[in-house]
Amino acid sequence: MTPEFQPLSQSAMNFHSDNNAAVCPEVLEAIAAANSITDGSYDGDRLSVRLDGVFGEFFGAPCRVFAVTSGTAANSLGLAAMVPPWGAVVCHREAHIEVDECGAPEFFTGGAKLILADGDGGKLTTETVRQVVAAMRGDVHQVQVGALSLTQATEYGRAYTPVEVAALSDDAKARGWRVHMDGARFANALVHLGCHPGDVTWRAGVDVLSFGCIKNGGMSADAIVVFDEQLAETLPYRKKRAGHMPSKGRFAAAQLLAMIETVAWQRNAKAANAGAAQIAAAAGNRLMHPVEANELFVRVGVDGATKLREQGFGFYDWGDAGSGEARFVVAWDTSAADIDALAAALREIAA
Amino acid sequence: MTPEFQPLSQSAMNFHSDNNAAVCPEVLEAIAAANSITDGSYDGDRLSVRLDGVFGEFFGAPCRVFAVTSGTAANSLGLAAMVPPWGAVVCHREAHIEVDECGAPEFFTGGAKLILADGDGGKLTTETVRQVVAAMRGDVHQVQVGALSLTQATEYGRAYTPVEVAALSDDAKARGWRVHMDGARFANALVHLGCHPGDVTWRAGVDVLSFGCIKNGGMSADAIVVFDEQLAETLPYRKKRAGHMPSKGRFAAAQLLAMIETVAWQRNAKAANAGAAQIAAAAGNRLMHPVEANELFVRVGVDGATKLREQGFGFYDWGDAGSGEARFVVAWDTSAADIDALAAALREIAA
Amino acid sequence: MTPEFQPLSQSAMNFHSDNNAAVCPEVLEAIAAANSITDGSYDGDRLSVRLDGVFGEFFGAPCRVFAVTSGTAANSLGLAAMVPPWGAVVCHREAHIEVDECGAPEFFTGGAKLILADGDGGKLTTETVRQVVAAMRGDVHQVQVGALSLTQATEYGRAYTPVEVAALSDDAKARGWRVHMDGARFANALVHLGCHPGDVTWRAGVDVLSFGCIKNGGMSADAIVVFDEQLAETLPYRKKRAGHMPSKGRFAAAQLLAMIETVAWQRNAKAANAGAAQIAAAAGNRLMHPVEANELFVRVGVDGATKLREQGFGFYDWGDAGSGEARFVVAWDTSAADIDALAAALREIAA
Amino acid sequence: MTPEFQPLSQSAMNFHSDNNAAVCPEVLEAIAAANSITDGSYDGDRLSVRLDGVFGEFFGAPCRVFAVTSGTAANSLGLAAMVPPWGAVVCHREAHIEVDECGAPEFFTGGAKLILADGDGGKLTTETVRQVVAAMRGDVHQVQVGALSLTQATEYGRAYTPVEVAALSDDAKARGWRVHMDGARFANALVHLGCHPGDVTWRAGVDVLSFGCIKNGGMSADAIVVFDEQLAETLPYRKKRAGHMPSKGRFAAAQLLAMIETVAWQRNAKAANAGAAQIAAAAGNRLMHPVEANELFVRVGVDGATKLREQGFGFYDWGDAGSGEARFVVAWDTSAADIDALAAALREIAA
Repeated sequence: MTPEFQPLSQSAMNFHSDNNAAVCPEVLEAIAAANSITDGSYDGDRLSVRLDGVFGEFFGAPCRVFAVTSGTAANSLGLAAMVPPWGAVVCHREAHIEVDECGAPEFFTGGAKLILADGDGGKLTTETVRQVVAAMRGDVHQVQVGALSLTQATEYGRAYTPVEVAALSDDAKARGWRVHMDGARFANALVHLGCHPGDVTWRAGVDVLSFGCIKNGGMSADAIVVFDEQLAETLPYRKKRAGHMPSKGRFAAAQLLAMIETVAWQRNAKAANAGAAQIAAAAGNRLMHPVEANELFVRVGVDGATKLREQGFGFYDWGDAGSGEARFVVAWDTSAADIDALAAALREIAA
Repeated sequence: MTPEFQPLSQSAMNFHSDNNAAVCPEVLEAIAAANSITDGSYDGDRLSVRLDGVFGEFFGAPCRVFAVTSGTAANSLGLAAMVPPWGAVVCHREAHIEVDECGAPEFFTGGAKLILADGDGGKLTTETVRQVVAAMRGDVHQVQVGALSLTQATEYGRAYTPVEVAALSDDAKARGWRVHMDGARFANALVHLGCHPGDVTWRAGVDVLSFGCIKNGGMSADAIVVFDEQLAETLPYRKKRAGHMPSKGRFAAAQLLAMIETVAWQRNAKAANAGAAQIAAAAGNRLMHPVEANELFVRVGVDGATKLREQGFGFYDWGDAGSGEARFVVAWDTSAADIDALAAALREIAA
Repeated sequence: MTPEFQPLSQSAMNFHSDNNAAVCPEVLEAIAAANSITDGSYDGDRLSVRLDGVFGEFFGAPCRVFAVTSGTAANSLGLAAMVPPWGAVVCHREAHIEVDECGAPEFFTGGAKLILADGDGGKLTTETVRQVVAAMRGDVHQVQVGALSLTQATEYGRAYTPVEVAALSDDAKARGWRVHMDGARFANALVHLGCHPGDVTWRAGVDVLSFGCIKNGGMSADAIVVFDEQLAETLPYRKKRAGHMPSKGRFAAAQLLAMIETVAWQRNAKAANAGAAQIAAAAGNRLMHPVEANELFVRVGVDGATKLREQGFGFYDWGDAGSGEARFVVAWDTSAADIDALAAALREIAA
Repeated sequence: MTPEFQPLSQSAMNFHSDNNAAVCPEVLEAIAAANSITDGSYDGDRLSVRLDGVFGEFFGAPCRVFAVTSGTAANSLGLAAMVPPWGAVVCHREAHIEVDECGAPEFFTGGAKLILADGDGGKLTTETVRQVVAAMRGDVHQVQVGALSLTQATEYGRAYTPVEVAALSDDAKARGWRVHMDGARFANALVHLGCHPGDVTWRAGVDVLSFGCIKNGGMSADAIVVFDEQLAETLPYRKKRAGHMPSKGRFAAAQLLAMIETVAWQRNAKAANAGAAQIAAAAGNRLMHPVEANELFVRVGVDGATKLREQGFGFYDWGDAGSGEARFVVAWDTSAADIDALAAALREIAA
C-alpha cells in the first residue's frame, strides 16, 4: 500500500486523491449563507437541528446524524458506540480503520481490537469473515467481537451490492454483532449501484454509517448516521470529550445539508465515477479491479509509471515496491482534459 | 456557572457568547482562496506548511503550530503532550478544561487528573497554586503534577499580565512543571495588555498555547502553538489518532493564516473589548469583575434579568440560581446599536 | 496527609499501618489446604466457585464476588462497572481513591472524574454532597455523575451508620446514581456498628462493595462484592484485561473464604478496634476524631511526636507539616504490650 | 486453539495446564517465613528491596524487578513501558498476548496495536517479522512499531536459542524497536537450552522479560525484569495505578526470591521437561512439534482423544474442531505414575 498523504507533487494532472480536490460551489455557498445570521453555538443552531430530518428523508428511515470533522472521527466515534473496550471489530485487512488511522479506533474505543479478514478487492465475504472468527471463543480470555465494519466503496474501489451487505449483516446479526459501514466514498458506491440509499444501509442491516462528504466536494464535515436510536445515546458525550463538537457547529451542518439538499452528492459522485470509467476502459487488461467508484488500480509497470510522471501525471504507486502498480483517483472536479489525457496515456501503455 | 450552550433564544440583541458570532470576511475570503487551487491533503498543502513560519514571526520565536477543529481539542491535545496518564494539571476551579469539556483532558491524557485551585476572577496566583500542591507528595501513590494551565483571558474576562504569567511560570518550572495557556480568548487579552504576543507567552514561560481563532471571527480552526520543540514530537500522532487531522487541512490553515496576516485578530478583539468596556462603564458598581477582555459579569438582580430579557437582550444567568448575576459577551461583530442599547439598559439598572 | 508507604522505621512498636501486620493463621492454613489438591485454573476452581454463595449467606442477599489482588483494584474495577468514561464519582476530598491510588479510578474507567466533597472525619453528608453537585449540569459539556463512593470506615476511622448510608444512598438513587463503598476497613466498621453486614450495605442502598481482607489479616486478596447483578456483567472482562484474573485463583478465593467461614474477620477486627479504643481513652482531649474503627488521630505536638519516636513508637505524622498531629493504626495482631505502652505514653502527653 | 481455562474435568490424570499444579514447598515456606516478622508495606519491605539484587545476580547484569500478580500484568505493564499509545508490538499470531489476554496489552498501553506474524511452532523468524512490517510506513497515518515480543518457551513448547533471539533482536534494534520476552515458561526453556539466563535475555538483546514463576510452582507472583534502566522509570506509577502494587508486597517478593535462591526454578522446570520428554518419546510420529519445554502437541485422532479421556486423562483439544489434535502439559508436580500412564497410552495410539 502506498500512503495517501505523500507531499503533493506539483503535477499538472493530479490523480493522487479526492482529498486534493476543491470544495464544490454548493458547499461554499451554504457556508456563506450560514454566516449571514447569528445563530446558536455547538449543536444548538438552526442548521444542526435539521440534520436528523434531512438525512432521515434521504435514507427513508429515522436516524440520528452527528457532524464530525474527519472520516477518522466518524469511523472511530461510531465504532466506540458499538463495542466495549474489550470488544473487537471484524474488518478487511486493508481497511482504512486498520491501515491509515494511526490506531484511532483503539483510542476511541478504549482498546478494542480489529480482527482482520481477507477478500478480493477489499471486499469481505461471509466466508472470509467466518474463517477469522471460527477460532475465536466466547470466554473472558478473549476480546469479544461486537461489530463488523464494511468499507463502501472499498479501498480498491469496489462496491458491495445490497444483497452482499445484507448477507454479511445477516451473519453478523446472527452472531450478535452490530454492522458499521465506512462510507468515505459512499456517494460513489451509491451512484454506481443505482439503488436507494436505504437499500444498501439500514434495509441491509447497517446500524451506523460514516457518511463521507469531504472527498466528494465537502470542506470539513463528514457525518455519523445512526439508524439504531440506542447506539446514538452515548455519541454526544463521546463527541464532546473528543473535541469533535465545534463551537460554531453550524458551518459543519451547512455543508452536509447542502450536499444532500442540492443533490450535489450525486452530481459530484457521478462525475468522478464517469471519469474513472472512461480511464478504466482505456486501461484494458492492465486494470486490476473492476471500477465501481472513482478509483482505478492499474498495472502500469515500473517504466510505465516513470513515463506517466514525466508526462505530468500525479498518482501513487501501489502494492509492493517495484510491482509497477498504480492507483489513480478521479475527483468530482477532475477536468475532462486531464481525464482524456490519462486515458490516452494508459491506452498507449496497455497497447 | 451557567452553560454557554443553551439553545439560543432568538434575541434581537445577542450577548450569549462569541461562539454565536459570524465569521469575519478575511477568514471567509481565505477559505475561498484556498479553494482556487488543487493542493496537498492532510498537512501537506501549501498553507499548512506556512503555519510555523507565520506564527513564529508573530510570536517572535520558533514554534510548531498544529491546526485543530476546536478549543477543546487544542487544550486536550496540548495537555496530553505535557503530562503522562499518571500526571496531573493544576488549573483554576472554574477553568473551561475542568467545567465545560466533558472530561476531554482525561480522555486525551489517558486519565490524568486536574487539580483545582482558587483565585479571584478565575485568576490563579502563586499562593493559590502553592496551597493545593502543598499537601501533594512525590511518591508513586499519587498522580504527579506535570503542568500548570492558565486561561488567558480567564473565564471571568480577566487578563494575566506578563509579570503575573512569569511569576506563575517561574514557580511551576521550579517544581519541574510545564506551562499551558488556554487562549480561547487570547486575542482579547492581548489587545487589553497591549504587549507583544511573545511577552505573555514564551517569554513568560508558556510552553504550549491554545490559540483561539474561532471565537474571534474564525470558523472552524483553533491552533496549538508549541514553543518547546520537544513537546511537539508526539502531537502529529496524537492529532491523527484523535481524528483531528482533516484530509483537507488547508481550509483550517487558511483561517489561521488569514487571522494573523491580515491582522484581523487585532481588529476583531479590539472591537469586542471596546464594546465590553463601554457597557462596563454603564454597569457602574453592579460590575463584578474588572473588564479586561470581551466579557462582563454584572449583578443585574433577578428582576433586572427579567426586564432585560423582555427588552430583547440575550445572555446567560451566572452564579448560583437566584443570584441575579448575568454574563454578557461582546463579539467582534456585535453592533454598535446593540452595545448602546445594553449600556443604556444597564445604566438604568445601576442607577 | 502523610503517606502510608514510607519506609518502615524499624520501630519496636509499629503503629504505622495495618498493612504491616501479619497474615492470620486461618488464612495461611486455607492457602496450605488449597495446595493439597490439583484444581482448576483462573476462576474455575472448587474454591472460587463457592465465593458467591458464601458471601451471599454472609450478607443475606444474592451477590457476585470477584477476588482481586489489591484494594485499589477492587475500588477501580468496581467504579469502572458503574460509570462510563464521561462519568463522574462523588467522593470525599480525602478518599483513598482520590489521594492514594495514583489515578487508578481514572485509568480503569477510561477517564471519569472524581468530584470532591467535604465532611468532618472523612464522612460525607447529604448536605456536602448536595453542595458539590448543585452547580453541575446535565448537559453534554460536563461529565455526568453516576456514582457516590463512601469509605467505610473512613480515612479518619469513622463509621457510617446504616441510617447515614441509607440517607446518602437515597439521595444518590434519586439522582440516578449508583452507590459504591470502599470497605478496605469494612470489618472494623462492622464490629463497631454491631449491625448485620447487610444493614450497612445492600439494605442501605450499596450496589458495589470493596470488601477488605488484606488489612484485616489477609495476605493478597480483597473482593468486589456486587449486589446488583447487572453491574457484574462486565467485571469478568475488566478483571481479565487488567491482569487481575490470576491463573491460580484458588489461592485468592481460599483467603476470602477462610476469613468469612472461620469468622476470623470478626475476631481480627474486634482485636484491632479494642486496642484502638484503649489507646483513645488514654489520649483524652488530644483525640481529634471519635474512634470507631482501628485508627486514631491524636494531637501529640511536635515535641510529643519526637519523644514518642524516641520511645520506639512507629507512626505517621498527619495533617500539615508542623501540625503535631499523628496517626496510629492498630492491627489485628498488635501486641497488648505495645498497646499498653502507647496508651501510657499518650496518657502522659495528654496530661 | 482451545482455551486453557475450561472448567477442570476431575480427571484422575491431569495434563490440562501447569496452572493447575500445586505451589512448591520452598515457595510456601517462604510465605510463612515472610509472615514471621512485621514489615513495611507496598514495596518498602525487607524482601521487595532485595529483588533487584537477587535477580541481577541470577541474570549476571543489573536489572530492575517488579513483582506482579499475573503473567498478563507482567506482559502488559512491560509492553506499556515500551511503546506509546500509537505504537505497535510485533508478536506471533498465536501469542498469549494476542489470543488469551482479553486485550490487556491494548488496555495498558492506551490502545497500541499488536501486529501478527507467522512462524512454525509459535516461533517468529527474522523473515516472518520482515514480511509483516515490509508494508508498514513511518508516517503519522499508521501506528509505529516500537517493540518485538517473543514467547519463551512458545505457545507450542518450542524454545528460541540464544542465537535465534539475538538475530531477531539485532533486526529489531536496527529498526529502532525494543525487545520483550514473554517468559511464562521461561524456566522450562532455560533448562532445555542449558545456557546461562543472561545468554537468552539481555546478552541476546532482550530489554524486558516477563519472568514466569506461577506456572513453575509459584503461587501468585510473576515478575517484570527490566534490563534497560530507562524503561523502568514509569513502571512504579503504572503498577500502582493498575492496582498491581499490593499493600503486603512482601508475600509476592518472598515467592520470587525463594524460586531463585533455592534454585527451585531449575528443579521444577527440569521435572516438568523430563516428563514431557518421556511422553514425547512414546508419542512417536504423532508428535507435532519438537518438545523443548513441558508441553506436547500430539495427533491423537478424534477416537484416540475419546479413548484417552475414558482412561482418565485430562487435556485440551487443540487446533480446528475435529482435527484430533491434543495438548498435554506436564507440571513440576505431575506424578511419575501419571507420566508413565500417558506415555503408555500414547505409545499404543502411535503404534
